[in-house]
Amino acid sequence: MKNKGDTLFFFTRKNKSQLKLQKPKNLNSNSNSQPQTNLRTQIIKAAEPNLKAGKDIVVNRGLYVGRFQPFHIGHLDAIKYALENVDELVVVIGSAQYSHNRNDPFTAGERLMMVHNALLEADVDFLKVWIVPVPDVHLHMLWVSAVEGYTPKFNVVFSNEPLTRRLFMEAGYVVKNLPLFDRKLYTSTHVREKMIQDGSWSELVPKSVAKFIDQIDGVNRVRDLARTDKVT
Amino acid sequence: MKNKGDTLFFFTRKNKSQLKLQKPKNLNSNSNSQPQTNLRTQIIKAAEPNLKAGKDIVVNRGLYVGRFQPFHIGHLDAIKYALENVDELVVVIGSAQYSHNRNDPFTAGERLMMVHNALLEADVDFLKVWIVPVPDVHLHMLWVSAVEGYTPKFNVVFSNEPLTRRLFMEAGYVVKNLPLFDRKLYTSTHVREKMIQDGSWSELVPKSVAKFIDQIDGVNRVRDLARTDKVT
Amino acid sequence: MKNKGDTLFFFTRKNKSQLKLQKPKNLNSNSNSQPQTNLRTQIIKAAEPNLKAGKDIVVNRGLYVGRFQPFHIGHLDAIKYALENVDELVVVIGSAQYSHNRNDPFTAGERLMMVHNALLEADVDFLKVWIVPVPDVHLHMLWVSAVEGYTPKFNVVFSNEPLTRRLFMEAGYVVKNLPLFDRKLYTSTHVREKMIQDGSWSELVPKSVAKFIDQIDGVNRVRDLARTDKVT
Amino acid sequence: MKNKGDTLFFFTRKNKSQLKLQKPKNLNSNSNSQPQTNLRTQIIKAAEPNLKAGKDIVVNRGLYVGRFQPFHIGHLDAIKYALENVDELVVVIGSAQYSHNRNDPFTAGERLMMVHNALLEADVDFLKVWIVPVPDVHLHMLWVSAVEGYTPKFNVVFSNEPLTRRLFMEAGYVVKNLPLFDRKLYTSTHVREKMIQDGSWSELVPKSVAKFIDQIDGVNRVRDLARTDKVT
Amino acid sequence: MKNKGDTLFFFTRKNKSQLKLQKPKNLNSNSNSQPQTNLRTQIIKAAEPNLKAGKDIVVNRGLYVGRFQPFHIGHLDAIKYALENVDELVVVIGSAQYSHNRNDPFTAGERLMMVHNALLEADVDFLKVWIVPVPDVHLHMLWVSAVEGYTPKFNVVFSNEPLTRRLFMEAGYVVKNLPLFDRKLYTSTHVREKMIQDGSWSELVPKSVAKFIDQIDGVNRVRDLARTDKVT
Amino acid sequence: MKNKGDTLFFFTRKNKSQLKLQKPKNLNSNSNSQPQTNLRTQIIKAAEPNLKAGKDIVVNRGLYVGRFQPFHIGHLDAIKYALENVDELVVVIGSAQYSHNRNDPFTAGERLMMVHNALLEADVDFLKVWIVPVPDVHLHMLWVSAVEGYTPKFNVVFSNEPLTRRLFMEAGYVVKNLPLFDRKLYTSTHVREKMIQDGSWSELVPKSVAKFIDQIDGVNRVRDLARTDKVT
Repeated sequence: MKNKGDTLFFFTRKNKSQLKLQKPKNLNSNSNSQPQTNLRTQIIKAAEPNLKAGKDIVVNRGLYVGRFQPFHIGHLDAIKYALENVDELVVVIGSAQYSHNRNDPFTAGERLMMVHNALLEADVDFLKVWIVPVPDVHLHMLWVSAVEGYTPKFNVVFSNEPLTRRLFMEAGYVVKNLPLFDRKLYTSTHVREKMIQDGSWSELVPKSVAKFIDQIDGVNRVRDLARTDKVT
Repeated sequence: MKNKGDTLFFFTRKNKSQLKLQKPKNLNSNSNSQPQTNLRTQIIKAAEPNLKAGKDIVVNRGLYVGRFQPFHIGHLDAIKYALENVDELVVVIGSAQYSHNRNDPFTAGERLMMVHNALLEADVDFLKVWIVPVPDVHLHMLWVSAVEGYTPKFNVVFSNEPLTRRLFMEAGYVVKNLPLFDRKLYTSTHVREKMIQDGSWSELVPKSVAKFIDQIDGVNRVRDLARTDKVT
Repeated sequence: MKNKGDTLFFFTRKNKSQLKLQKPKNLNSNSNSQPQTNLRTQIIKAAEPNLKAGKDIVVNRGLYVGRFQPFHIGHLDAIKYALENVDELVVVIGSAQYSHNRNDPFTAGERLMMVHNALLEADVDFLKVWIVPVPDVHLHMLWVSAVEGYTPKFNVVFSNEPLTRRLFMEAGYVVKNLPLFDRKLYTSTHVREKMIQDGSWSELVPKSVAKFIDQIDGVNRVRDLARTDKVT
Repeated sequence: MKNKGDTLFFFTRKNKSQLKLQKPKNLNSNSNSQPQTNLRTQIIKAAEPNLKAGKDIVVNRGLYVGRFQPFHIGHLDAIKYALENVDELVVVIGSAQYSHNRNDPFTAGERLMMVHNALLEADVDFLKVWIVPVPDVHLHMLWVSAVEGYTPKFNVVFSNEPLTRRLFMEAGYVVKNLPLFDRKLYTSTHVREKMIQDGSWSELVPKSVAKFIDQIDGVNRVRDLARTDKVT
Repeated sequence: MKNKGDTLFFFTRKNKSQLKLQKPKNLNSNSNSQPQTNLRTQIIKAAEPNLKAGKDIVVNRGLYVGRFQPFHIGHLDAIKYALENVDELVVVIGSAQYSHNRNDPFTAGERLMMVHNALLEADVDFLKVWIVPVPDVHLHMLWVSAVEGYTPKFNVVFSNEPLTRRLFMEAGYVVKNLPLFDRKLYTSTHVREKMIQDGSWSELVPKSVAKFIDQIDGVNRVRDLARTDKVT
Repeated sequence: MKNKGDTLFFFTRKNKSQLKLQKPKNLNSNSNSQPQTNLRTQIIKAAEPNLKAGKDIVVNRGLYVGRFQPFHIGHLDAIKYALENVDELVVVIGSAQYSHNRNDPFTAGERLMMVHNALLEADVDFLKVWIVPVPDVHLHMLWVSAVEGYTPKFNVVFSNEPLTRRLFMEAGYVVKNLPLFDRKLYTSTHVREKMIQDGSWSELVPKSVAKFIDQIDGVNRVRDLARTDKVT
């Protein structure tokens, strides 16, 4: 089931003591998607009186997907930007089942640590953030449904990635662009290349991420994986 | 992407020489689903002038899912009923990858033959029918998307099966009940039990299906599978 | 179970009112495969008197496998050629589970529409054609068995593709070459490249396929997929 | 790589402003497992001076696995108990890929909401809790490695479940029992049965979970799934 | 590719110093399968002069499939019987990927040890035996091909199991019955039940198998698995 | 469960008539791994008196992994070297499920024949060798556990491959280098290239392997696979 412009009624983590009914932020959408009335909306509407009495609030929840191999400053900027536009953000750690590959060196658990530490370090209010590892299904026609199954409901997707944008648009979601960052510097591929060449990779990632990668001997792992004959 | 009440513009197989714009049949829906405007609708609307000029017609297309292990007279009645309510019907052969199991003795190819032969025998206009094998994904949250990926677009689902009904309703589809048939007689389980007990199974299935099962030595296969220790 | 030179006794779709026992067309095989007598042959032989009484006919059925990403004029020519040599043809839509990939942009359902529309447009007697989506198993040692499980029985394979030819030959099938078409023009890769470059792709595919691709906004999908960072 | 009795050096979420080196709590283990020195220990030891300088602290992290179909008061009690014995707890939402089954009605995303809401409601310091959905691998010999790959490092497992206990014990982990709760009342199976029979299920789960299940029309879903013929 | 009655030309392990061309033993088949000439036969025939010059010998190789959970005296008797009828025997350890399940407690590696130790203990000439773990594919239509892909070529199958017999017969193999043993005593299910009930299980298995199970604490594993709530 | 420096008590195949307690060979390890005491060690220690009475011996067992596409002289040299350092060697045929691919032309069964024939030809005491096909799991975080599940217990790994070394080191195993052979000549890739170019490939593999490849028409298969458009 898809949620487009409508609102979602759940406990928010933001400030439990001040629960109240809020209007969703104006999304200033760059999509033409219009309101719809579907089963879920009807269920939510039927529950509305109870919800109001229970002081539940309306949440605008966004989605941001990354592989974070590793998490870098560009990812952090994207999360900060998205959080200015929604109440809560679901950060999906994509391709969660992969690790120890040339292009996917770190496990989902290690990437969970990276995202978490970086948000703490940056004083991002991570109570507004859900961090959820989601394994790939390799059938793209199923991918949106898979993400929906692993995550809290969301109603806007932040992405510049052409395939991600297309799949969520075809499924009827509002999809918004992220402001452009210096793509050359801030890609995970670039960070891994610097690691292999012994360059100054650590300035491309948050300090807490650099420290974590050191702790788990991550640079040597990336280098070993770059030398292997084994393809994934 | 989901299609609820809107129309679909494709070549129909029904009568190629008389293509014209048709109004969809009134579905007399037992769902509360209301019209929506989503991306696909917009695409189709943008293409509408061209489509009209090209003499394409509007098709109401239904979906009917079965495992057909084997195909019996109840299945045939259901297909006939559905075809009275839509222009075309997609008949999905479910659990397509399974065969040689106690509850799934026949291959997708064999079941394709059964459906096909039964429709020919019954003088059903099978030009209105699409027969499509679809393998199971065992994650129910992905199943509707998987069916959508394997089939022509449809806008109404015919089913009495509680899980099928729920999954398509949660995905926003119009779901209609089938009239009740004598469930005790016309279930595939009952037919297989009769086969094992050497009872009069053949009167429960169309004649052409009975003949086909004889040709492929199907009753002996069903009996062997009933005696096996191997679970699926 | 493999069928090599022997005949298959099923209902044919060709002309239901004139069912009679036919001799299979001479396949003029380019394989050295010789007749064999196996279990299936014995079953069929035992059933023969009944079959004759039932006016069933003998069917020579061919197999043709393609991904059809998208379906182009070369595919149509191949199907026409094959149909001159067999009574019926099973057209397998291969890699059926994939879509929204750079090299596999269209879903099985969309490709089913393409093949169907193209056969209607070309006045090919599609009553002689079975269109069957078959998902890939990535273990080539299992692929022939998987195709056999999803399809009506066939006894000759049409292919120029070296792997397809080898797998079916090793499994004992008669494998026949298709006449050479202008490979440079008529490959799906070439059509997709033309789509990305905004070239004149539509003349490479049947008109009904071009129109269908327009309806589903297919060119923009192909372009988005060409720009993605995501590998399959 | 397995961690048994040794300590883990990461940022803790507990109190970011007071980072200091802590001694792990005495686990009062009911296992005979003894200290070992392996590669990870050596890496961590080599990094220790840096870590101390960086004011990182030592974390005792536990693991607790449940399917939470749905989350009930027994689960909450188990989490509270475990948190008295460790600094942080990883709560794994098991069988994450399943939903809409008779025994697994809710998606991972819905269960994530349940756990989250229940912890907030109970004033559990959920900053000490990591909630991580982990899909099943059906090869039990791989399951411990899969859990390790999806989660932050942990060094003690809380479980009464015989298979979970055995798998983690064979892998060398400290495994501790949970105090016995009234098993008859507090099992997810019992809650689902009450839902189907229209009994007083809601008193078996935290209030916020009951409300959430109402919002998503969960009881009707559970009832539909109980009536289906479809096996998983 | 299937092998029915024809012979196979490979090195035999039996007696390397006395390689010579042998006639295959008369299989005294209880199948009606008749000789066929297929591609493999042609390849082998073409290679025959070289083979003869190289002193290769003709090998009749049988197949015997079991799960061996655990290996018991009935399995040993079956292997001994089969070896009286063929030159070599491929012993397939089926469902190789499973372990730590109620009905599949032991890993493929542990079962490999059991078979190996039992053959050594029984003075079976295990140089005539190939022990090959083969993982299940759950699509029975693919299973014969999967077994063929994992094993040396074989030309006769020994089995009383109805599904195994049917699948190999449909694929054209000679399938032979094994003499009946006391089924009540000698089934793996019975041995596991005795283990759980603390009965005298060890007399049902070869001594070396009993000792091995003791070494790996197997009885406690079987008991833990019997108490688990987790289904496979 | 991991085994590092400790010993394993099983029947050895080496010389059944002279079973006695042996000290493991000094592995002269290039790892810093130190002894540990884990559950398995305790089990084994508890069983020790029985084992001694039963005249079991201590086995140092190594692991060597290859795809053997095809088996060449470098593989043989590696096996010979490893056998000088351990009592027994487990030779894993990796990527066992693949065949008929450009880089994986041969089935597991065919590769089993190659390894076996080559060891016989080279007068390697193959009674010291376990040859075990192991299918790939594509999640590297699970791979060590998968290998452990398919094989007899081993306590040292021989490999120069960076990924294999890293995965087993992270899992706590002793990993030893193999002496360097002429890598340019003795790689399977090089052998397959020579096959395609009609070069002198046969001198790169043992004679019995060359003969076997001829028997199964392997060179033509490799050439067909090199010409295919199909990617794996």
